This record gives sequence, structure tokens and C-alpha cells, in this order.
Amino acid sequence: MTDVRRTILEVLNGETVSPPPIWLMRQAGRYLPEYRATRAQAGSFLDLCYNPELAAEVTLQPIRRYGFDASILFSDILVIPDALKRNVRFLEGVGPQMDPIDADGIDQLDASNVMTHLAPVFETVRRLRRDLPAETTLLGFCGAPWTVATYMIAGKGTPDQAPARLFAYRYPKAFASLLMQLADISVDYLVGQLDAGADAVQIFDSWAGVLGEEEFAAFAIAPVARIIEGVRARRPGAKIIAFAKGAGFNLKTYRQKTGADAIGLDWSVPLNFAAELQKDGPVQGNLDPMRVVAGGQSLDDGIDRILQTLGNGPLIFNLGHGITPEANPDHVTALVKRVRSFG
Amino acid sequence: MTDVRRTILEVLNGETVSPPPIWLMRQAGRYLPEYRATRAQAGSFLDLCYNPELAAEVTLQPIRRYGFDASILFSDILVIPDALKRNVRFLEGVGPQMDPIDADGIDQLDASNVMTHLAPVFETVRRLRRDLPAETTLLGFCGAPWTVATYMIAGKGTPDQAPARLFAYRYPKAFASLLMQLADISVDYLVGQLDAGADAVQIFDSWAGVLGEEEFAAFAIAPVARIIEGVRARRPGAKIIAFAKGAGFNLKTYRQKTGADAIGLDWSVPLNFAAELQKDGPVQGNLDPMRVVAGGQSLDDGIDRILQTLGNGPLIFNLGHGITPEANPDHVTALVKRVRSFG
Repeated sequence: MTDVRRTILEVLNGETVSPPPIWLMRQAGRYLPEYRATRAQAGSFLDLCYNPELAAEVTLQPIRRYGFDASILFSDILVIPDALKRNVRFLEGVGPQMDPIDADGIDQLDASNVMTHLAPVFETVRRLRRDLPAETTLLGFCGAPWTVATYMIAGKGTPDQAPARLFAYRYPKAFASLLMQLADISVDYLVGQLDAGADAVQIFDSWAGVLGEEEFAAFAIAPVARIIEGVRARRPGAKIIAFAKGAGFNLKTYRQKTGADAIGLDWSVPLNFAAELQKDGPVQGNLDPMRVVAGGQSLDDGIDRILQTLGNGPLIFNLGHGITPEANPDHVTALVKRVRSFG
Repeated sequence: MTDVRRTILEVLNGETVSPPPIWLMRQAGRYLPEYRATRAQAGSFLDLCYNPELAAEVTLQPIRRYGFDASILFSDILVIPDALKRNVRFLEGVGPQMDPIDADGIDQLDASNVMTHLAPVFETVRRLRRDLPAETTLLGFCGAPWTVATYMIAGKGTPDQAPARLFAYRYPKAFASLLMQLADISVDYLVGQLDAGADAVQIFDSWAGVLGEEEFAAFAIAPVARIIEGVRARRPGAKIIAFAKGAGFNLKTYRQKTGADAIGLDWSVPLNFAAELQKDGPVQGNLDPMRVVAGGQSLDDGIDRILQTLGNGPLIFNLGHGITPEANPDHVTALVKRVRSFG
């Protein structure tokens, strides 16, 4: 860190910054024509993730266009199963697929080559730290063990990730082992990103919302707490945002028990509850990405409500989920302008 | 009603029945070999819904096998769009599809033939009331306007029903009109079911969980409140269960503002919160359907926790979502036995 002001780090330290800093989940993505042009130069989606030059380029694109306060490493939560040789591939219009794993496969997972496999990601982070404006926070990330595990079990996305829930009921020990292995790999992976120049990291638990109460504690909270503890043991003071989509009721406990500096809120979190959560620390979110597609009054209304309710506390303005390919880039311009005119 | 004891109606009146009555969402379904045999005799899935003899037969099958305390009419929430000539079809392994509707289409919806189209459903209810054991509560149902509308807009199921959320932001007046039209048709439809012999009805809002706070009030609460008010205006004292999957935080308000007699809880609702909700009135739920697939200890544990937390108040034991085709019929036997041995 230099003495340059990185407002997102101030918020992660519990300070209120007005107007709040802003970035968008999946801000480097298909809604941008420059992304689609670079994407066309890479082979597969994973090729793009492992190409430091092109991955850095797409990461920088939304910063050039919008001047977001944070840049998030362009990669995917499934690079870890890919590094574990689960034959991950991204099929156009179908979503991610990989070889489903069973209990024996979990016993035999070989993590010895993971950090070597992920070396290009660290190189992307190094390039970004070099090429980003000094005031732009650089975020690394990983998927939370539960969400990564759901794809590893089913081999794909499924409604309410039922196959992983079933597997966890049937093979509780194997499933716990998978979560712990993923947590330990994630510690190494996030430490590697921090050492390469990331200012902070975010843990994405996109499927946290399909868990019952006890499973939420065991599958969503415990492994993320283990990651955060592990990262901080090796990099004291590391700043970590945790985003558990659909966690609803559980968000208060989630922050307390994981030790995350800030919690991400999806768009279904009522703002009054978000304000309660903000009393315990910084929050990030939570505009419905569909408002960015719609634009106009529905976009303005959604922004204003968030700013009015959460803008006078520690807030990182963001969407409640990733921006979608249909989003109009001009609506993002309007969004950034409106947030920056607050206060 | 005769003087026969229908325990679910007692619970809907706020009484505590021990052991609690039990039925399962989608209890007439593909997990049962006898269902699959009858299904094979019908043409399409909708043909089965509109065939009173076969629809009554599959409705009765789980009652014969398990002696559930309630029977739920075999039909589908999408018979209403089908009656509105939206070209509904159910494709094997793909899910429901129909012609997507736009704002003009909403203006031109023709509801004049809906009740005639749905006459076979009422005939199914009449047969059921005749053929069911006297002590078995007969439930009718419909889809909530929001959930039905999401399929009408997108023409199919989509992740987080984004097309309908977007449509509602873009065309708020047309969308409000669609919800109100669906609510009014649902009133007629539910009154028709009650008149044909249903003891009570359930309203299914499977996609309530993807709504932001204000949208939940406008799209999930308001139309269901309109249905309940409309049904009770014509059939005073009609008993109504409302199931808003994923409604989380909003469930307390949901019961208060819709006026539902009982609220259904999905498996993600923490039991302590469920106990709070039970102080306001009867609750129904909320075992993870995957526990019924897994069986054994995970099934027993899930049942016991619900019974311990909610079994001494007004409870209708149920799953937190529909039973799945993979469920083992013997596990359902064990489930019913365990619930009935409570207290």
C-alpha cells in the first residue's frame, strides 16, 4: 500500500465514505463490447482465465470505461476444481460442466499441482497491480467451498443444487472432507493472490441460500471461517469480503462466525435488515442486476433506496448478483454517476 | 363437512394436534410406481391433469399407500395459463414451456373460457370428495400470480426468473395488470374447487424468493391477499394455506398481510424462526426433500428436529418443497411412521 487513497479499503476498515465506493460483480463481462472482442481472441473460457495478458486486459476494461473504485481479477470460481483435474469445461449456453466426483474420488483428490496450475492467475494479479490506477482497489477472489463442492458433486449447476445436498446427507464424512480440502486450497490460493498484489479478497458462496439451518452452519459458515482464519494467520490483517447469496436470516451470524470484514448482500435482502447488518460492520450491495438492464426510473429508484438507507454508513455500492450480458453499458454509466452524486 | 375428524382442518383453526397431521407436497408423483403406471396411460402431462378419472386415481394412490391426512388434487399451477391459451406444454426433462407473453398480449388476455376449460379439474375434485376416506382432508390449489406470471413472461423456468423481474421493471403497469388478472381468475378457480368439495386450498408461490423487498410486497403479498380476500368474500371462512418458497425474512409480514390461515415453510427456514412464526398461527413444513431421498439417520434427524421445535404447536408436517422422483417410497413409509409416533 502506498499513501494513495483506496476508498474500498477505508470502508473495509469500518469507515463511512461518502459517496460510497462502487464496483460491480462480474463487471468484466459480456455486456461490454470490448470484453466480447477480447474473449473472441482467447480459445475457451478457461483459456482466457489462464492467459495473464488477456485476463488482465478484460479486468482493466471496465476500469477504463467507468473508473470503478475496485477492479476484480478476471477468473472463475471453478479454476480450483479444474486445478484438481476434474475436467472442467464451460459450454456456451449450457454453463459449467465437469466430471462428477464420488466419495472415493474425494479421498483421492490430488492437490499437489494446484498452485502450479494456478500460477497464471497470480501473474494476472501482478500485471493488474502494475497497470491499474493507484487509487483502484484490486480484489482477488475464490468460490466458497460449499458452492464449489455443489458443482463438483453434480458436475454442473442444478436446481437448488439438490445433488450436493443429497450427497452431504448420504456421505457426511466424505462431504466434510471435500469442504475442508477446498478450504485449505482456498487459503493457499487467496494468500497467493494477496502476495501477488491483491488488496483484499472476496469469497463467493452463490448457493448458500439452498441450505437448511444446520447445513448452513456446517457447509457455509465453517469452511469460510476456516479460510478466513487461515488467510489471516499467514497474512495478518488481510481484508476479506464474504458474499453468501440467499443467506437471508443467517447473515448476522454469518458475519460474526466467519469473521468477514464486510458481507455482500443479494438484492432480496430487505434494506431495513441491511441497515441492521450495517451496524455490525460494512456491507456491500445490493441492487437487482435486472434494474441495470431496465434502466430509467427503476434503476434510479433502486439506487436511491440503497443510498438513502445505507449511504450514511460503511457501504460498498454493488449489485446484488453479477451484472448480466443483457445490461446496457450506458445504464452502468448512469448508475456510477448517480452513486457518485450522493451526499 | 360431516362430524368426521379432519385433523388438518383442526390445525388450520389454530389447534395443536399431536401427533401433527402429515401430507407431502407432490405426494402423487413419479417416485411412486403406481403413479408412473397411470401416467403411462395418459397422453401428455396436461392430458392427465384434465382426465378426471386418471387424475383422481393418481391423487388417491398415496392416500392408499400411506394414509396421509390430506390429499391434494392432482393438477398443475400452469393450467391457468393453459386455459388462457398460452400454448402450455410439458417437455420431458426440459420442464414447462409456453408462448412468452408481452405487454400487448397481457392487454388481450381472454379469460372468458377459463372456467369451462378447467371444468375437468372440478370434476376431479368431485370424484375425490366421493372416493376419499372421510377423514382425509381434500386440498385444492393454485399457483400464486407472481409464480404463474414468471412462466408466462419467460415462457419457461429461468435462473432466478430474471425475465419476469426485468419485465416488471420495464412495464410496471402491464405487469400489475397481469398479476391482477391472474388473481381474479384464481379466485374463481379456487371457489370452483371449494364448491366441488375441497376442504381447503393452498396457494403455491414457488418463486417468491427472488424478489426484492418492494417487489415482494407488490408481487407476492398483494395478489395473494387479493385472492384470499376474494375467496373469503364468496365463501366465508374458507381455509387457505400460502406457501412462499424462499420468502425468508418476509414470512411474518406475509402471513399478516395476506391473511393466510397457515403458511408453508421451505427447508431453509431456521426452526427457531419457524417457532416464532408459529406463535402467530399454524405453520406447515419443512423437511428437506433430499432427506427423504437419503433416508436413514439424516431422515430421522430432520424429522425429529422439526417435531421437537414445532410439534407442540399448530403444525402440519410436510416437506419444504415437493418430493422428488428419486425419493424411495419406503423412506416415505418410515417418515409417516416416525411422525405418527411423536408425543
